[in-house]
Amino acid sequence: MAAARCALALALLAAPTQALAARRRSPVRMSIAPSDVVVMMNGLPGKMGYSCAEACVARGMTLADVALTGEPFAGTPTDDRIPKVDLVAGGSDEAEKRGAELAKKCKEQGKVLVAVDFTAPQAALPNAEYYARHGMHFVMGTTGGDYDAIGKTVTDGKHGAVVAPNMSKQIVAMQAVVDQAARDFPNAFAGYDLTVIESHQKAKVDTSGTAKAVVASLKELNGGGFQVEDVEKVRNDETSLNGANGRLGKVPSEHLPGHAYHTYALTSGDGTVTFELRHNVNGRSTYAEGVADACLFLAAKADAGFPRARFLGRRKRLFDMIDVLQEGAMS
Amino acid sequence: MAAARCALALALLAAPTQALAARRRSPVRMSIAPSDVVVMMNGLPGKMGYSCAEACVARGMTLADVALTGEPFAGTPTDDRIPKVDLVAGGSDEAEKRGAELAKKCKEQGKVLVAVDFTAPQAALPNAEYYARHGMHFVMGTTGGDYDAIGKTVTDGKHGAVVAPNMSKQIVAMQAVVDQAARDFPNAFAGYDLTVIESHQKAKVDTSGTAKAVVASLKELNGGGFQVEDVEKVRNDETSLNGANGRLGKVPSEHLPGHAYHTYALTSGDGTVTFELRHNVNGRSTYAEGVADACLFLAAKADAGFPRARFLGRRKRLFDMIDVLQEGAMS
Repeated sequence: MAAARCALALALLAAPTQALAARRRSPVRMSIAPSDVVVMMNGLPGKMGYSCAEACVARGMTLADVALTGEPFAGTPTDDRIPKVDLVAGGSDEAEKRGAELAKKCKEQGKVLVAVDFTAPQAALPNAEYYARHGMHFVMGTTGGDYDAIGKTVTDGKHGAVVAPNMSKQIVAMQAVVDQAARDFPNAFAGYDLTVIESHQKAKVDTSGTAKAVVASLKELNGGGFQVEDVEKVRNDETSLNGANGRLGKVPSEHLPGHAYHTYALTSGDGTVTFELRHNVNGRSTYAEGVADACLFLAAKADAGFPRARFLGRRKRLFDMIDVLQEGAMS
Repeated sequence: MAAARCALALALLAAPTQALAARRRSPVRMSIAPSDVVVMMNGLPGKMGYSCAEACVARGMTLADVALTGEPFAGTPTDDRIPKVDLVAGGSDEAEKRGAELAKKCKEQGKVLVAVDFTAPQAALPNAEYYARHGMHFVMGTTGGDYDAIGKTVTDGKHGAVVAPNMSKQIVAMQAVVDQAARDFPNAFAGYDLTVIESHQKAKVDTSGTAKAVVASLKELNGGGFQVEDVEKVRNDETSLNGANGRLGKVPSEHLPGHAYHTYALTSGDGTVTFELRHNVNGRSTYAEGVADACLFLAAKADAGFPRARFLGRRKRLFDMIDVLQEGAMS
């Protein structure tokens, strides 16, 4: 009988578990003094570069005096929003030399060096290889790179990374919640119509990536045939300002050049019931704050030697924003 | 080593599991022909009684020709929205006699009898005892009763029941999703302000019960000190019609006498990011449809002899709307 129970128990243990449930067994939270973290802000003089640098400095981290940039921007002086940074071209000998010096100096001073990467799709993998060569931990928000290859530079190395296409903790949490809902309650909204409308700055041509991801989950809830092309894109100042007659939040005029407003609506077949989810973002601060959180998370993990998540667990060095969120949940 | 692994496996099995994860191991879906289900609609001539009766008939179920009502309403003729029903006072000898006859007739004809209860708080427990005496399965949406005592009438008996304070599958799903989110991501919205505004018909004095339940979860997400008293109640036709200047959905004038509109908003400390959840219900059809779903769910379970949910599982006869939802997910 005991043997049978044991066999049953082992069989059940082998069953697949939900990702989130497994992640709940997290270790106690670890932390590091922000002043012990040095951030190499690669992607300056881009807007996200400035926003991330400002957020990290505001949180008490130190900005490295050198950073990678695209070749046309090498030597561009940084402006006075942030401490002075020398911008060197990624892939250059200068980049190798300055990177090695920076890594050496941080090590000597007992600081944890974290590179932040908001560069370009074609730079993502070469930069990841650069971080591996110099043993730099990194937080990468650059999209469009080869995520598998980038992940391999980390798992093959000894350093750590947070890699995520969306660095906003709250948006990532919202996406995870909707995704879980679709798995828990497929067809709970059968017979409901799904409509999606989003507004972004006029310069953004394609459909919101967040909308695409959320729609992929929501369509499980109503079991319907919603297509990405059915997302209504607003790229018109007047409509953005008036909130598409109540269907969207109203975009403040100063944020017309940079905003991301979304409304997902599920409406019952008889029209009597509507559920709406809206997420409206002005500017870049939620992403920059997420980057700062990710830097502190990663530096603390590195400082603790990337401890095992649990007894007999593997040492984990490659993370995403869900990991950062879950760590926050332990605080 | 094998013994150690076995002990570890057994220890892990003993760990508490999330309710939803456990419920995912549901049996294959069972069903019953609606024409084999007889519904005793207790709570006529109330509005929910009519709505539920209409929904059940529209789905092909048969309405019993007798039902329990409050003493002042005994003998009231039902109107022509539904097949004729004799309304007898709950607790009367007539109710006992007619109930016994109905149960006997259904049994002889091979029909499954399900009582639906939308009565009054003080009638809920006496009615549950009545259902137990007559072996009637029941779906109870009546609120304010003693749920523990009502549940005990079922677990002590041989019949089944679906008992839930909110019979809308979609609202119940939404509540479960928010509740799970609060457990998965506590403090993910730390530093965000929570605001809640709801509109109901003017006759509703107290704060929405759904709002209270959702707020209990949302406050875990921002870790803040939101109080139920902070919910802004709209009981004013003009504000309901204009949607509180965009903060609520606009209530159609014909639904001013019966609606439930809610907006929950989480706004970042710097005001740049807002997440909103809105659920707007006009009339009673979403609740009535949920009752019809619950009747078919319960009748199918009863028809199959309330099978065990899994190998070595217990026979379950007392259900809530999450069970109904999860069964739907299997279809």
